[in-house]
Amino acid sequence: MRSRLFTPGPTQIPEAVRLAASTMFPYHRGPAFKKLFQEVQASLRYFFQTKQEVIVLTASGTGGMEACVCNLFSAGETVLVLAGGKFGERWAELGRAYGLQVILLEVPWGQPVDYTALENLIKTTRHLSGVFCTHSETSTGSLTDLQRVAEIVRRHSQALLVVDGVTSVGVLPFHFDEWQIDACVSGSQKGAMAPPGLAFVALSERAWQTHSRSTLPRFYFDFTAARQAAQEHGTSWTPAVTTIMSLAESLRRIQANSLEYYWNHYARLAASFRAGVQALGLAIFPKVPSNALTAVTVPSGVEGKALVSRLREEYGVTVAGGQGQLKGRIFRVTHMGDYDHLDQIGLMAALEMALAGAGWRFEWGAGLAAMQHAYHDSSSRQG
Amino acid sequence: MRSRLFTPGPTQIPEAVRLAASTMFPYHRGPAFKKLFQEVQASLRYFFQTKQEVIVLTASGTGGMEACVCNLFSAGETVLVLAGGKFGERWAELGRAYGLQVILLEVPWGQPVDYTALENLIKTTRHLSGVFCTHSETSTGSLTDLQRVAEIVRRHSQALLVVDGVTSVGVLPFHFDEWQIDACVSGSQKGAMAPPGLAFVALSERAWQTHSRSTLPRFYFDFTAARQAAQEHGTSWTPAVTTIMSLAESLRRIQANSLEYYWNHYARLAASFRAGVQALGLAIFPKVPSNALTAVTVPSGVEGKALVSRLREEYGVTVAGGQGQLKGRIFRVTHMGDYDHLDQIGLMAALEMALAGAGWRFEWGAGLAAMQHAYHDSSSRQG
Repeated sequence: MRSRLFTPGPTQIPEAVRLAASTMFPYHRGPAFKKLFQEVQASLRYFFQTKQEVIVLTASGTGGMEACVCNLFSAGETVLVLAGGKFGERWAELGRAYGLQVILLEVPWGQPVDYTALENLIKTTRHLSGVFCTHSETSTGSLTDLQRVAEIVRRHSQALLVVDGVTSVGVLPFHFDEWQIDACVSGSQKGAMAPPGLAFVALSERAWQTHSRSTLPRFYFDFTAARQAAQEHGTSWTPAVTTIMSLAESLRRIQANSLEYYWNHYARLAASFRAGVQALGLAIFPKVPSNALTAVTVPSGVEGKALVSRLREEYGVTVAGGQGQLKGRIFRVTHMGDYDHLDQIGLMAALEMALAGAGWRFEWGAGLAAMQHAYHDSSSRQG
Repeated sequence: MRSRLFTPGPTQIPEAVRLAASTMFPYHRGPAFKKLFQEVQASLRYFFQTKQEVIVLTASGTGGMEACVCNLFSAGETVLVLAGGKFGERWAELGRAYGLQVILLEVPWGQPVDYTALENLIKTTRHLSGVFCTHSETSTGSLTDLQRVAEIVRRHSQALLVVDGVTSVGVLPFHFDEWQIDACVSGSQKGAMAPPGLAFVALSERAWQTHSRSTLPRFYFDFTAARQAAQEHGTSWTPAVTTIMSLAESLRRIQANSLEYYWNHYARLAASFRAGVQALGLAIFPKVPSNALTAVTVPSGVEGKALVSRLREEYGVTVAGGQGQLKGRIFRVTHMGDYDHLDQIGLMAALEMALAGAGWRFEWGAGLAAMQHAYHDSSSRQG
C-alpha cells in the first residue's frame, strides 16, 4: 500500500526538492552557501511580495511567531489578538508569556470574523501597540480578509499589524508591501513546499523602527543579529543547511510558474474538493473557507478519530483530525503543496471507501463525479 | 575538483544519513513518526549516557543554549560563566540578555583553565544559581576537564552545572548521569553526524525541579511543553522531520559501532593530524586541545585568510578560519564526523601544497609521513 500525505503541513513536496537536500552540503560560512542563500533571499522577497529583507530562522512557524512578539514589543504594552482557532490563540499565549496586555477578540471557531466589532475595538482601545491576526487559520480552515483587517488597522491606529501567514503566503493572494503589513510569519513546509524546519519573517520599515525600541529579552531570535547576517547573505546561527537547499529548489520552481499560478491552482483544487465532499452529504466546517485546506465536519453517526485512522490504515491516506475543541468533530485535508487534481481524485476515492466502511450512506462515485464537474467548470472559466 | 568539508560543524556526514532525508516524510503527529522518534529518544539517551529524557528542539545549538537559560533561571539570579572563547562568551551574552547577574571567569583564549581560581570563585560567591561552561571550545580548539569542573561545583555549591557539549557529546568521553551534569546542549551536525537544524538538551532531576520555579519568559523553547510532547513521542512544535530522519539513521550507526569506538577513533585522528602539522613546523594553538577539532596557529609570514581561501579554491578543501580575536591567526580542522585516516591524509597533502604556495618552507611529505607514523603507533598500542 502506498502512503499519501494530505495533512495541512507538512504537505507533500516535489521529489526534486527532497533530493536537493541529499547531496553533501556546503559550509554555512563559505561562498557556495552565501551564493545559494542570496538566491533564497531574492526568492523570499518575491514569495512575500515585498522589497524588504525576509528573515530566515531555523525554527518552526511558532518560533517565527515568538520572534515577532519578543522583537517588536515591550512588557506591559497593549495588543489586540483576533483569534478564531488554535493558531490565533497562540498569539495570545505568546503575548501573555512575554508580559503583554492582551485584548482577545474571540471569533467562534469556524464562524466569520466580525469586522465591525474589530473596528470598534481598535477605535476605542488606547495606546494599542499591535494587532495580531491569522490569515488562514489551520485549526478550523477559516479565512480572514487580511486586506480588510489591514485597512481597518491603518485607518484607526498606529499599531503594528502582525500576521500569521504560515498557511497563506504562497497559497492565497498575499501582498506584504501593498497591503501595508508590518510583520508576517511563514514556514518552509507549507506554501513554500519544502521540508519543515525554517520560519520566515517579513518586516516593514515601521516594524524595524519599533524593533529598535523593544526591550523584551531575546538572543537566538534577535532580528538585529539576523539582519546583520542577512546583509552578508548568511544567518546569525548555523542554519538548517539541507532544508535551505531544498527550499532554494522549491522557490525556484514557484518563481518559474509564478505565484499567481499557485493561487489559482489551489483555488481550483479547493473548490473541486469541496464540491465532492458536499456531494457525499458532508458539510464544510468553516463559513469562510481558506483555499489552503478544507475542514470537513464529521457527520453524525461516524466516529471522527476512527475515520482518520481507517483512511491511513486501510488506504494509506493521511489526513489531519481536529485539534482542541474540534477533536473528533472535523477532519482536515490540505490543498497547498505538490498536489494536482488526480491526487485529489485518489483521495476522494479513499474517502468514499472509508465513509462507506463507517456506515455513512451515499451513492458510490458521487464525490468523484462532483469533483470532475467542478474541476472541469473551473477549467472552462479559466480557459 | 572534488569538494571536501573539514569544518568543525557542519562536518561531513555519511551518505546513508543524507539519503535518509530524501524519501517522502511522515506526518509528525502520525504513528510512523512517533515510532521513529521513539527510536531517536532511546538513541539520544545512549548518546548522552543518561537515563533522562533528552529534549529535541528545531534550532541550532545556540537555541538550545538559550533554552537552558530561559527555562532554568529567573531574572536577577547570579551565575558564573567559565569562558575561554567565543562559545563560552555566548553563555555570558545569553545570561545578560535575560537579566541574570553574570560573573565571568575569563580564560585567555587557548590557555588552560585555572581550576583553582574556579574553585575559589565558587566557594566565595553567595547564592550562586548556575555555573556555565564549554566542554570543547570550538573557537580555540581547547578542552575543559568537565568531570573536574563538575566535582568542584558539586563540592562547593548547589548551583546547576550547565554545559555546552555541542562539540563534545559523541566525540569525547562524556557521561551525563555519572558526572552529575544538570543540563547539557548538543546539536545534530557535530558528533551526531546529521545535518544542522536540531539542538538536544539533556536535563537532570535537579534541573527539572529548578525549571518548575523559573520565571523567565519562553514559549517555543519551553521545557515543560517539550517534555509533555516527548512523553507521547513527539515534539511541542512541528519539528525538522527530514533532519530527524537523518539523525535516526546516524544514531543507529553510532550505537552499532559504540560510543567508545568513536571516542577512540577521534583521539587517533586528532593525534595523527597534530603530529603531521607539527612536522611541518606549525604550532597547535590551544595548550589543552580537544579531539573534536585542531586549531593550528598560522605561521608568521603566511596570511591566514588567504591560506583558507587557497585550500578551498585550489584544492577543494574547506577548513574554518579563526573567529573574533583569532581572525586570520588560526585555522581549524575538524576530526569529528564521517572522516577516516585516508580523508585526513588527503587533507594533509592539500595543506602541504597550500602552505608551499604561501611561501612556507618544509620538506615535501613530512606532514604525511608524520601522520603515518603517529597513526601506526596508536594502532599498535590499541591492537
